[in-house]
Amino acid sequence: MPNDTETPGALDALAQTPTSRRAFLRTASLTAVGASALVACNKTSAQKPAAASASGATGGTMGAHDTAHNAANAAATAAAQAEAMDAMHEKGIKAFPAKTEGKGNQVLQPRIEKGVKVYDLTAKVVQWEVEPGRKVEAWTYNGVVPAPQIRVREGDRVRMVLKNELPESTAIHFHGLELPNDQDGVPFITQPPVKPGQSYTYEFTVPNAGSHMYHSHHNSAKQVGLGLLGAFIVEPKRPQAIEKVDVDYVMILNDGAHGYTFNGKSFPATEPIVAKLGQKVRIRYMNEGMMIHPMHLHGMHQTVIAKDGWPVPAPWKCDTLNIAPGERWDVVVNCTNPGTWAFHCHILPHAESDHGMFGMVTALVVGK
Amino acid sequence: MPNDTETPGALDALAQTPTSRRAFLRTASLTAVGASALVACNKTSAQKPAAASASGATGGTMGAHDTAHNAANAAATAAAQAEAMDAMHEKGIKAFPAKTEGKGNQVLQPRIEKGVKVYDLTAKVVQWEVEPGRKVEAWTYNGVVPAPQIRVREGDRVRMVLKNELPESTAIHFHGLELPNDQDGVPFITQPPVKPGQSYTYEFTVPNAGSHMYHSHHNSAKQVGLGLLGAFIVEPKRPQAIEKVDVDYVMILNDGAHGYTFNGKSFPATEPIVAKLGQKVRIRYMNEGMMIHPMHLHGMHQTVIAKDGWPVPAPWKCDTLNIAPGERWDVVVNCTNPGTWAFHCHILPHAESDHGMFGMVTALVVGK
Amino acid sequence: MPNDTETPGALDALAQTPTSRRAFLRTASLTAVGASALVACNKTSAQKPAAASASGATGGTMGAHDTAHNAANAAATAAAQAEAMDAMHEKGIKAFPAKTEGKGNQVLQPRIEKGVKVYDLTAKVVQWEVEPGRKVEAWTYNGVVPAPQIRVREGDRVRMVLKNELPESTAIHFHGLELPNDQDGVPFITQPPVKPGQSYTYEFTVPNAGSHMYHSHHNSAKQVGLGLLGAFIVEPKRPQAIEKVDVDYVMILNDGAHGYTFNGKSFPATEPIVAKLGQKVRIRYMNEGMMIHPMHLHGMHQTVIAKDGWPVPAPWKCDTLNIAPGERWDVVVNCTNPGTWAFHCHILPHAESDHGMFGMVTALVVGK
Repeated sequence: MPNDTETPGALDALAQTPTSRRAFLRTASLTAVGASALVACNKTSAQKPAAASASGATGGTMGAHDTAHNAANAAATAAAQAEAMDAMHEKGIKAFPAKTEGKGNQVLQPRIEKGVKVYDLTAKVVQWEVEPGRKVEAWTYNGVVPAPQIRVREGDRVRMVLKNELPESTAIHFHGLELPNDQDGVPFITQPPVKPGQSYTYEFTVPNAGSHMYHSHHNSAKQVGLGLLGAFIVEPKRPQAIEKVDVDYVMILNDGAHGYTFNGKSFPATEPIVAKLGQKVRIRYMNEGMMIHPMHLHGMHQTVIAKDGWPVPAPWKCDTLNIAPGERWDVVVNCTNPGTWAFHCHILPHAESDHGMFGMVTALVVGK
Repeated sequence: MPNDTETPGALDALAQTPTSRRAFLRTASLTAVGASALVACNKTSAQKPAAASASGATGGTMGAHDTAHNAANAAATAAAQAEAMDAMHEKGIKAFPAKTEGKGNQVLQPRIEKGVKVYDLTAKVVQWEVEPGRKVEAWTYNGVVPAPQIRVREGDRVRMVLKNELPESTAIHFHGLELPNDQDGVPFITQPPVKPGQSYTYEFTVPNAGSHMYHSHHNSAKQVGLGLLGAFIVEPKRPQAIEKVDVDYVMILNDGAHGYTFNGKSFPATEPIVAKLGQKVRIRYMNEGMMIHPMHLHGMHQTVIAKDGWPVPAPWKCDTLNIAPGERWDVVVNCTNPGTWAFHCHILPHAESDHGMFGMVTALVVGK
Repeated sequence: MPNDTETPGALDALAQTPTSRRAFLRTASLTAVGASALVACNKTSAQKPAAASASGATGGTMGAHDTAHNAANAAATAAAQAEAMDAMHEKGIKAFPAKTEGKGNQVLQPRIEKGVKVYDLTAKVVQWEVEPGRKVEAWTYNGVVPAPQIRVREGDRVRMVLKNELPESTAIHFHGLELPNDQDGVPFITQPPVKPGQSYTYEFTVPNAGSHMYHSHHNSAKQVGLGLLGAFIVEPKRPQAIEKVDVDYVMILNDGAHGYTFNGKSFPATEPIVAKLGQKVRIRYMNEGMMIHPMHLHGMHQTVIAKDGWPVPAPWKCDTLNIAPGERWDVVVNCTNPGTWAFHCHILPHAESDHGMFGMVTALVVGK
């Protein structure tokens, strides 16, 4: 549903926004047919933009030689340019969440064979739509970026059957799992490379809980950069009290050949996180890229509860959490503040340009 | 006063350095008229440079074909080049703290209207002197970079009146404050953009204490990069014991169009932090740039007390603190070690080149 | 010994790997003369690569116009290219740990003069072999990169005699030590520069324990980038229980003119860390470069015990630790998982390319 731009107000419905907001959206739809939920709010009269005093209208850039006539022309040009820029910005936000083909990071249900959870993963090249109309070559597990999400429990017996349909050899490393050495997935150190056309089977008992990852460990700068990566979540036998949440969201950050992405998509095709007022949302950040990404949530703080799957000695609060490549950080957001909140990487060139928001931007929608 | 290079010894007077150092500075002034405080100390005789053995004088770079004659010439050339380089380095340090036009990050006193603290902010383009003689185009609130510092108390009622004299639309996001959604400052999500020539009013009750920021959230990579940013400090109703300090210093890091800056200035125009022996200095780091900056203080450690305005569960010590974009970190330095201490970003190309120190360098001066 | 590629199995001997692994290596040596320890393990039959179904053999990149004939040709070409790539990858890993000339970071024994530990350091230019056959210009203390490791105890009296045989002036900053100001090593602030051909003496009582560094603080972006850096380890008078370890390893990260290095060498010339099952390894990370390096250890977690030499309030666990320039982080690894474990920077372009692993890669070898 979040991907359906043909349904105005879809996000709004999810958010169960209060009457005043819905009323605004109904009003807005009179002039903006097909707009989705994130259009600008009407302001109360006290907050409405008003013309500034004439003396200040053209800003501080006029030179001393400008005549009043030239100044008026320049102001008109600036105003037109500002309108054009704003229109591009608005268009991007109205398109959010934009519909694209393909959705990664969905939980993969295993086959059960004699008590073993069996997952079939086919490494293959596909075309992947990162944002509306922009398709890129992606190297994938099962045709999606990120790969299907694996979700198991501490102590489970798991078998991962990898079939390599790539033009290169490959292998899977289970990043964060403390496996026996021969299951570690590093060609020429712990196993032979899996050649094109070959299959390879990993099998192990899941040793440690937490937010982990799986990805290629062969020619990895290229293969991971192109999409051979996914989340491997291990639920603990005895969860902590702080882990009792209403929404459990995995957010994989990337910055490789596909651009700046959350879960394989760039804004406006990123997915909003949706919760109700009073709910708790756990976000499991994972960085599969080459750069840091300090993730800034508006409106509410984040409480850090785990690093690389290990509980922190004492939870701590922040609003901007710096995630480095290979790291996982788990946070809990107590959704006490209703509204649609911008949520983005705070390296601003990863999130906005003259043409509007793009890349690493999404929203946390807290409905009443 | 720190900006006045016409007053030799101005920094020295602030620092109340002991007799021996003052005596040196008086001596130095005989040969270096107009030198400021940070010139090299005379060393005791035990530490004076002395000629190394002749065999090693030219280093290890000579080829086997060099004759003794050529080697002597090369050594002379190297010595002359070293002198020339040192002269550039010395010149930069002697100029510190260099006088420039304009000073940002000064506390703005509000008008009080019926119990509301009212701040007027005019967004406008000015020429800004980053270091002596280097003027750049800056997009500012009230003509300064960083913007005026807002300092309020938890629970205060605050009104911010923004007048847009820029050639683009804009808006203010209060980064770190947990405001009602319609005060969050994100065009097309929480409000309309404020067009050139328009005004816009934010008003709210200050919800959470700590070191926060305010900056543009429209075309932000450009607008924040050009200077639309400032500190928004919220003092808590009940400060912790560790917050009782003698000096409270806000240090905003930036690396955009204006180069590497602390509070809008590059070395040698940066501002020294001055304290007396035994005093405690709180530094509130804020990163408004696009890169990390690991801040290294010489001579004394930093005790981390807060992240993004939230007290850490247990203070911890370091001498190099990595600040990522959008983050704020509060530290306390117990000034137990007298002297003038280098204080800089430890990404060395942000702080020094062949031509000497520049960019992200300042000093903590602990006077006796 | 780890650097001697002429001794097949040298690493294996260190690691005391179990019978099955040794048996594999003997077998492997029949076809790969001179191979060192990190060649691929034979897998049990259940895990051997097997031909995938024919339909999937060529991956998903074929266009609709491909005939079966063209597809077969393309598959053959892809297979040949994959083999060629794998051969390059294997060659690199087989070469590990590769022999190179020169070894830095070795503990320097002081002369004792009237109870003072005296260290002689000559700054000079040498050719340094970063990896087999790649020699670079290095600016060094005593001809090695990193400089000799200084290891002293809290309260020791230490004298460092610097002789400058470089073509530039220089000075030594003791990064992390809380020294008297005149020993801080910053030219024109705390001392004059030490000119080419001159000597200079630092002398102090070691004030604070921990993992510290010493490096040039003059024209430092260049001088440190070229190698004027080393570890300065201060053992505490009263170690904590968690500091009782079997292996104490200093790992200096760098990314300057010499490329991506650990202790002055690039993979495959990096040094493996070797421990026995059940032993504890302390790793003292130090970043002397310009970029972050999130260090990822496979197979076991790292417990963080100190930051910049200061014990953390409560140890915390991770598998990927982000190290910023100028920072030091101490971790303890409890070697509970036998095998040869990849250990690398997780910014993948710092560790692997189409031509195989390079740069910031090493291994932790846990023998049974």
